[in-house]
Parts: sequence; structure tokens; C-alpha cells
Amino acid sequence: MAMKAKMREIPQQKPGEGRTKNIGLRGVTVADTKISDVDGENGILIYRGYRIEELAENSTFEETAYLLLNDALPTAGQLKGFSSRLVEARRIPLFVLESFKRLPAQARPMDVLQASISLLAMADAELTLETRDANVSKAIRLIAQVATVVASWHRIRHGLEALPSDDGLSHAGNFLWQLTGKKPDPEMAKDLDTALVLHADHSFNASTFACREVVSTQAHMYAGVAAGVGALSGGLHGGANAQVMKMLMELQNEKDIAGWVKKQLDNGQKIMGMGHAVYKTIDPRAKFLKEMCKRLGKKLGQEQWYRLSTQIEEAAVAEFEKRGKTTIKPNVDFYSAPVYHMMGIPGDLMTPIFAMARVAGWTAHTIEEKFAEAQGKPALYRPSSDYIGNYCGKTGCTYEPVEKRK
Amino acid sequence: MAMKAKMREIPQQKPGEGRTKNIGLRGVTVADTKISDVDGENGILIYRGYRIEELAENSTFEETAYLLLNDALPTAGQLKGFSSRLVEARRIPLFVLESFKRLPAQARPMDVLQASISLLAMADAELTLETRDANVSKAIRLIAQVATVVASWHRIRHGLEALPSDDGLSHAGNFLWQLTGKKPDPEMAKDLDTALVLHADHSFNASTFACREVVSTQAHMYAGVAAGVGALSGGLHGGANAQVMKMLMELQNEKDIAGWVKKQLDNGQKIMGMGHAVYKTIDPRAKFLKEMCKRLGKKLGQEQWYRLSTQIEEAAVAEFEKRGKTTIKPNVDFYSAPVYHMMGIPGDLMTPIFAMARVAGWTAHTIEEKFAEAQGKPALYRPSSDYIGNYCGKTGCTYEPVEKRK
Repeated sequence: MAMKAKMREIPQQKPGEGRTKNIGLRGVTVADTKISDVDGENGILIYRGYRIEELAENSTFEETAYLLLNDALPTAGQLKGFSSRLVEARRIPLFVLESFKRLPAQARPMDVLQASISLLAMADAELTLETRDANVSKAIRLIAQVATVVASWHRIRHGLEALPSDDGLSHAGNFLWQLTGKKPDPEMAKDLDTALVLHADHSFNASTFACREVVSTQAHMYAGVAAGVGALSGGLHGGANAQVMKMLMELQNEKDIAGWVKKQLDNGQKIMGMGHAVYKTIDPRAKFLKEMCKRLGKKLGQEQWYRLSTQIEEAAVAEFEKRGKTTIKPNVDFYSAPVYHMMGIPGDLMTPIFAMARVAGWTAHTIEEKFAEAQGKPALYRPSSDYIGNYCGKTGCTYEPVEKRK
Repeated sequence: MAMKAKMREIPQQKPGEGRTKNIGLRGVTVADTKISDVDGENGILIYRGYRIEELAENSTFEETAYLLLNDALPTAGQLKGFSSRLVEARRIPLFVLESFKRLPAQARPMDVLQASISLLAMADAELTLETRDANVSKAIRLIAQVATVVASWHRIRHGLEALPSDDGLSHAGNFLWQLTGKKPDPEMAKDLDTALVLHADHSFNASTFACREVVSTQAHMYAGVAAGVGALSGGLHGGANAQVMKMLMELQNEKDIAGWVKKQLDNGQKIMGMGHAVYKTIDPRAKFLKEMCKRLGKKLGQEQWYRLSTQIEEAAVAEFEKRGKTTIKPNVDFYSAPVYHMMGIPGDLMTPIFAMARVAGWTAHTIEEKFAEAQGKPALYRPSSDYIGNYCGKTGCTYEPVEKRK
């Protein structure tokens, strides 16, 4: 670097004036949406007008996916047609399964899933057809196939053969079948179905925003959804449920939960699954999963997970309150982790299962983004940044030949 | 959908008050950066303090990648070490090459590249090690291997064997060798090297922002770079150079360029490669590529591409000016397309070559994003949206059983 390089003064920053930085884009409204809304103050989540509680109690993942993609609940005929299309799309191309057999067995399921999204693109005959109908068809294929990918990779990494779909089973039930090779208990399949409904969308969360950002360049849906998988894999987003499970495993024999919580916070550590970027009260999805955790524990004789989770929740809420943080409550990941664990799902498949659900929202959002231009939203997301690096004025720093550099 | 659903009133919108929507995030400052800066008014692009002209004239892609990753030009010893590490990292894992042999031959190179980024992640022994050094190592592997992936897929899709690296050649020269199987003309290799320097970074463009957005969730670098590849593939971003080439091919025998330009604009169509989200004057990179196009045309006896391109440029600038649009000038894609074409690079590899260059910026930006927390930037990008869809008040729309829906 040229020696005369110095820090640039930020022209837009006048002395004494605080710089406005839109840190993490919190509170920066970037678009209109008709898909979902989160009211973080009141703990209300709606999909297309319906509260999440209403859908979790009454709907199915298939119907909710239809709602997210189509802006209305289906008639009986529409639901039948949509469900059939999902079943027909379950099978993934042979070359994808063949490539799985050559992957390192320790490959992380979220990396395999991200690679698979781009591989599936190659087999989509409508890939570059950018009508709304073609995009809904791509969405159906993606929703169906993400589940098959997750189940198939899990079997192949353990030296087993991937299983064909059982076309008589629901999306959730068939996933459990393709994962385990056992016909699932109907009640457990229904619980997983409900968990998928709860995770299917959440407005402009980081992974959904990544999908929208990518397709705003006119990239195809698969390119966007692969970005969504990447964002979801992060520990601050979908990766959190796996970390909650890790915490629960480590605390199985801990006698002094309150003491452990206090020490974590004293050391500046997080309590995984507590707190949310948007919710300032209890996450409405967590309430459902907490009940499910209690019920499943009783049924399976594994009540220790519910007991441990509620102990941690109570200790953490109390400890946060002591520190003046009264808005930190359990989020969706806190009780989904023990629920999935009791369903027999290993820790590193918990985030992929989140993806299985969220792909319904991702695809709905990419369609909305692609056709938003008609509503006056132009072109791609292209933010600004403040340059605070080396600066030698408008002429730039002088390039010195490599021999002269010290 | 429940019949009582109605459009929600936007609470933050008071009557008579215009809504502020940060459309496409234009002008919204989202972060500090020390990597690069674009002064769109004056047509100035700097990398780490150096003007792009200075680097294009004097530097190499290897040295520029070092600069982007390390904030200073290397000493002779540092450059030697860095270049050696790039050479050593060129080879891609066998399972990636094996999977290429099973892909559909018509698979789009950008889809293959996006899948490959996730596949390469699986072979990285430092994948989840989040130190700065480990991330620089990942960056070196990614920069080296993106080129190998692009060249190898091109050969394999044509039924040829992938070629091993020629370790004596530069990054650009070796790419031409691995692509064509011929030792490249040194002057042409140097021109490609310069083109890579010109494309290596561009502050918070859509693909770089996608990379940063994804890793802001604490996802690993490969997950972020795969998102960058997805965003770059879009026709409004890196996909534009391929579309410029298509336009040039179609206009080869057009006598009335001015008439064609006028008709395009009358029909509301774009002129590919003209105009930019940030530059309001000529793109400094385009100036370089224009000269290169002229020189290469003369050398290779293919002056028709320069002639045609300048005719389109002049007609388009004149026609835009007539319409009061005086800031629409050629961007980086306008002259890179004929340059790559004369180098023998097919249209659908032009965007992958953009990725080969931009991966230097993507990796530098993911490192900056990952270690920005120390500078007070918290957590992930999570913007807001305005919900304008179905709304039935706080109680939500009523779920009607499917039999009752019409």
C-alpha cells in the first residue's frame, strides 16, 4: 500500500452529526408484500391474512403451501390437484442420486441441499420460462423435492438406498417414511405436518430476503432458493435449532440450570433459541411447539426434554429480566429442537427440515419479487456503503512496483 | 380465503403522507467497507485506495486478489507465496469432476458453478473454522477453483476430458489452457488477466450484497459465495454480458443501427450493456475494455466487433440524449462481450468468467462481513416490509373447512 494512504473522510458526515447506518436493515422497509406479516410487539404472525394459530390447528402443509403461493385457501378440487402435483414431483432425477453416492459421507446436509437445488435446476424443462404459471410449477417441484433430497442424502450417507415415495402418504408422512424406511405413526406425521405449517413463512427473514435479492437480478427461482438455503444454514438463522439440541444434550445431567444460565450470560454468551430479531414477546409458533413437546414427551415416555426445556426457559427469562431485558422469550427453534429429537430426527437434519418447510415461503416470495415490477418496484437490490478504507484523494494511491515495496 | 378479507391499511402511512419505500435499496447505506468504492458521479472506482486504471495498467489478477483480501499490495515475497497457494489450490476434488460427467450436457454453466461451490465446500477441511486465516485460505481455494470448474465443465459437456493445471501459467493463462487445451498467446492471456482485474470487485453490487447477506447469518463462506453466483447469473447483473453478445450477433448484418436503437427504445426495450445503477457517466472499466476491443480486433483481423459496438454506443447515447437521459453510457458488459468473443469464449461462459473475477471481491467481502461485528455491526440483515395483503384485523381471517369453500 502506498505510504501516503490515509483514512478517507466520509463526505456525508458533518462534524457533530451522527451517521445513520441501517445496521442489519432493521426497520428499513424494502418492499410491499401480500404473503405474510409479523407483528413483533403483539406476537402475531399471519400468512395471507390467516393467523398462524388458525392454520396450525386446522390446515395442512400442502394446503398452507397452496395458500402462500396462491393468495387464497384452495377449494376441495384445487387442493386435490395441488396435492397430486406435489406427489408426482417427489422423485428426484437419477443423476442427483448418483452424485450423492460420490459425495464425502461427512458432507453437511445443508451443503448437500444447497448443491442439490442447483442440480435440480438442470433437470427443470421450464427453467428459463418466466411466466407466473411456470414459476408456480417450479415451486411445486422444489417444495416436493427438497424433502426427497434431505431424506435421500441421509440414507445414502449411511450406506442405505434412497427410498421411493409412498404416494398414499402426506408430504410430512412420506418424508418420515423416506427417511426411516418405516411407515410413520399417523399422529407423529401430523405433528411434523404442523411443524412444517409453523415454519413455512415469516415475511422478510434473512433467508427469504436472500432469495428475493437474488431473483431481483432476474436470476431463476432455483438460483434464489439456493441462496435461501445458504442463509438458513447460518447459526443465527435456521442453524439455531441444531444448536438448541446441542445445548439440551449438554445440559441433560446439569443440576443447577439457573446457575448455568447465569454463567452463560455473565460470560457474554447467548442462550440458544431465546430472543428474536422481530418478536418482543413470545413467538406464537413457540407456544404451539411447546405444547407439542409436552404431549409427545408424555406419549413417548421422554418427558425429560420438556422438563429440561421449560427449566431453561424459566431460568433464562428470569435472568434476562434481572438484567432489564424483558423482551427475550423462546423463539421457534427453542421447542422445535426437542420435538424433532423425539421424532427420531438427528441434530444435523433439523435445519434441513426447517428448509423443507420454508421453501414454501421462499418460492412464494420469489414469485412475488419477480412480478413486483408491474407494481412499480424496479430492478435489483443494490444498497450503498460508506467507504472508510485507504484513500489518497481522487487521483488514487500510487502503484509502486513490487520490487520497491517493503 | 374468508370473504371478509379486505386490504389492510398500512398503519405507518398517514393520510396525505407519501410512503418512503427504499426501492431496490438504492442510496440506503447498509455498512462500512474498506474494500472498494464507486463514485458514480465522477466515474471513479477504487480498490483499497487504488484507482482501477492504475491496477488495470500495472497489476495482475493474483496481485489484485491479494490486495482485496489483505488491504495492501504484497511485497515480492508475499506475492510469490500467495501465487503459489493459488496454483496449488487449482485442482478440484475428483468427486466433483465425476459428478460433472453425470450432469445433463445442456446444464447452464452458471447452474453448474453454483452447484460446484457447495460441492467444493464438502472437501474443505477448514470449512467450519471461522478464524480470519482460515477464511483467507478458503478464499484462495475458491478463487483458484472457480476457474477450474468453469473450464472443466466446458470440456466435459463437450465430451472431452478435464485438463490438469499448467503450473507455470498465470491464473488467466492457465484458465485459457484448461479451457481450450492450447497454450495461450501471452498477449491474450494478459488481456484476460486485465479483464479479471477490472471485474474483481465493485462495492455493494447485488451479488456481493447477496454473499454478505448470507454470511451475516454466520453461514460459511461457500454458502455465501453460492448466493453470489446465483445473483450474478441474473440478466440485470452478470448475465448482461451474454445478452450483449446475443445483441451483437443479431445486429451483424443490420445496416441501420440508429433506426434499430430508436425502435428498441420506442418499444420500451433496453439496449443491453448501456446504463448502470451507480454510474452516471462512463464506467471507467468500459473505457479500458473498449481500447482492448479495438486492439484485439486489429490483431485478430476481427475489427467488425469494435465497429459494430461503437456504432451502437454512439447511436444509443444520441438517442438517449434526445429523450433527456444524458447519464446512460456503456457499462462494463458492453465491451467485455466482444473482447471475450474474440478470445474464443462462448456466450454462455461470459458470465462464469465474470464470476471467476468477482469471486476475489466476494470472498474479501464475506471476510469483512464476518469480522464486522467487532466494529459494532450486529447480526444478520433482516429488513422490514409493508404488508398490503388480505387482512381481517388482529383476530385474523376465519379458516373455513375445505368442503365449504367455493
